[in-house]
Amino acid sequence: MFISFEGLDGCGKSTQLEMLFDYLRNLGKKVIKVREPGGTEIGEKIRSILLNKELDINERAELLLFLASRAQLVEEVIKPALRNGYFVLADRFADSSIAYQGGARNLGVETVEFLNRFATNNIFPNIVFFIDISVEVALKRINKKKKDRMEIEGRSFLEKVRDTYLKISNTKSNFVIINGERSVDEIFYDVRKVIDNYIISK
Amino acid sequence: MFISFEGLDGCGKSTQLEMLFDYLRNLGKKVIKVREPGGTEIGEKIRSILLNKELDINERAELLLFLASRAQLVEEVIKPALRNGYFVLADRFADSSIAYQGGARNLGVETVEFLNRFATNNIFPNIVFFIDISVEVALKRINKKKKDRMEIEGRSFLEKVRDTYLKISNTKSNFVIINGERSVDEIFYDVRKVIDNYIISK
Repeated sequence: MFISFEGLDGCGKSTQLEMLFDYLRNLGKKVIKVREPGGTEIGEKIRSILLNKELDINERAELLLFLASRAQLVEEVIKPALRNGYFVLADRFADSSIAYQGGARNLGVETVEFLNRFATNNIFPNIVFFIDISVEVALKRINKKKKDRMEIEGRSFLEKVRDTYLKISNTKSNFVIINGERSVDEIFYDVRKVIDNYIISK
Repeated sequence: MFISFEGLDGCGKSTQLEMLFDYLRNLGKKVIKVREPGGTEIGEKIRSILLNKELDINERAELLLFLASRAQLVEEVIKPALRNGYFVLADRFADSSIAYQGGARNLGVETVEFLNRFATNNIFPNIVFFIDISVEVALKRINKKKKDRMEIEGRSFLEKVRDTYLKISNTKSNFVIINGERSVDEIFYDVRKVIDNYIISK
């Protein structure tokens, strides 16, 4: 079973991922975490290009590098793990590209959908937890340094990211929208309920 | 004016590119050469990943890395050069991905066409010189080391590359098929004729 967590920075998705990881392990399940970009030797090399502030990278090249890292991660890690009965928990996956690059950077939602299908060879999460918070709450929650970067991108950029997430939520059956403006435990209660139902139904 | 040279390794395209470069310079034209992957700082970093024999890179990730390098090259080098009136000569460009990855590696010609359009932002050569030689001639011409690699890929792989080039030649108005099984000067005579006509028509 493949599960991804999506949302704005500050929405709490990494915390929820860790809680779900512990929960599944305590149930005796085999589970791994993955992150993007990275997670493979090639992916880490790509990550170091993407995080290099000296390089003035074009937005199309940037997206293609993310996709290259994703393609490698799918083949090298995610597919073998799923084949071997693991739960795979991803802190962001294909839908981040749709929301950030497709929606907010105007590269086109449908174009990025096509590129994702190519990169992942049609491997997508069974469940996407979209932890939804308002842009105001996102800016309040995150630390100063990250905030500066996000403020530079602008509130309207973050609004576009959120709007795109909400829009694709309506069209995709694997999306679960979770209200992220609550306590960690309240949020996890919802996450756990979805997972428990999924496990029981199998 | 943007010109690319395509064909099997050993077809003589790099020699023709150099001859055209000198020819245009002697006519007093502004001209640059580009190569893929590479040609920019980001492209060279990508190149070092692609040429690293230790890494077992997935074929989709490989194509996406080529495309990322191409996207950066287009924005950083090719577009500004064209805007400033340069001739840009490329030793392989988008059509190599179509022939090698799309055709011979079975990723799909139309899929790779879509990916190319995204990566290049619809910048394509005005003229593509496809220097055509048979697989037999290609294997005879190239040096031992390269031959081993090409033999590993197999003759049927190279036949597929050539067939895909020939197929796309029929559908694209910018393609010029040049018989590469002749002397360097005979081939260049044809190349020059096309370029002279193009220059006169402007």
